[in-house]
Amino acid sequence: MNVQYINPFLLATIATFDTMFRCVLTREDPYIKTSDQPSHEVSGIIGLSGKAQGTVVVGLDREVAMKVAEIMLQERPADINSEVIDAVGELANIIAGGGKRHLTGMEMSVSLPTVITGKHHCIQFPSKIIPICIPFRSEWGPVTVEVGISELTPNP
Amino acid sequence: MNVQYINPFLLATIATFDTMFRCVLTREDPYIKTSDQPSHEVSGIIGLSGKAQGTVVVGLDREVAMKVAEIMLQERPADINSEVIDAVGELANIIAGGGKRHLTGMEMSVSLPTVITGKHHCIQFPSKIIPICIPFRSEWGPVTVEVGISELTPNP
Repeated sequence: MNVQYINPFLLATIATFDTMFRCVLTREDPYIKTSDQPSHEVSGIIGLSGKAQGTVVVGLDREVAMKVAEIMLQERPADINSEVIDAVGELANIIAGGGKRHLTGMEMSVSLPTVITGKHHCIQFPSKIIPICIPFRSEWGPVTVEVGISELTPNP
Repeated sequence: MNVQYINPFLLATIATFDTMFRCVLTREDPYIKTSDQPSHEVSGIIGLSGKAQGTVVVGLDREVAMKVAEIMLQERPADINSEVIDAVGELANIIAGGGKRHLTGMEMSVSLPTVITGKHHCIQFPSKIIPICIPFRSEWGPVTVEVGISELTPNP
């Protein structure tokens, strides 16, 4: 995967946490995701399509998801409920939307977000895709953004 | 959600299992997905975007996923490995692609599929969306297709 696709999502994640939540994210070294790495407890998934196809996964530990929802709702939810699901879906939407705006010329649009919960779920990309994982540290806990993008090959 | 969006995916699922796998699916009554229903052990997720935004989730029990991969690979995989992930991702891609072709005028394109594994994962849509679940029975076990589509409101 072309590394030029990574930076826009990296920057959009940092900017979103900064402006929406006043939460400083510290980026750690990106790595290539392998299939059997467990994911976070809550993951927002959103598809991208246009001149390239892609998926962005925003993975949050439970406490990060709770804090994100608490700030968006101005009230701490009791549990990982539908309000937290909505907040994490909206977060994925904002990060994917922010990232794609910098990929000018790709004419990409976003799908609906879905949110996966469950302690031992594993999110896997097709093996022809090499998804890049960008891990971040924050005062609330770890955040990971995974981006997999495939340029469409023109029809012969 | 407009029910006209459901039938194309229902028909695409039946046709795909019939033509690719010679497997007859029997449709049961569709229902509205609620947030806390557990999903199947393997789920293929694919986004749609265009004049509407959507997500299609193809949920398979373990044995159905294994049979799908066995037929696509012409060899039974040892476990839910990367070959099974690819087969389930491709299945989601074919069903979503088949469904969207019947939604003429929506100009929808598909994102990359992702595949979720894990016994107790839960896939949730934003609460403003009312996803429809279509359950099917087959000789291999149950299959569920969930479709959530949101028509975009034009900018004012």
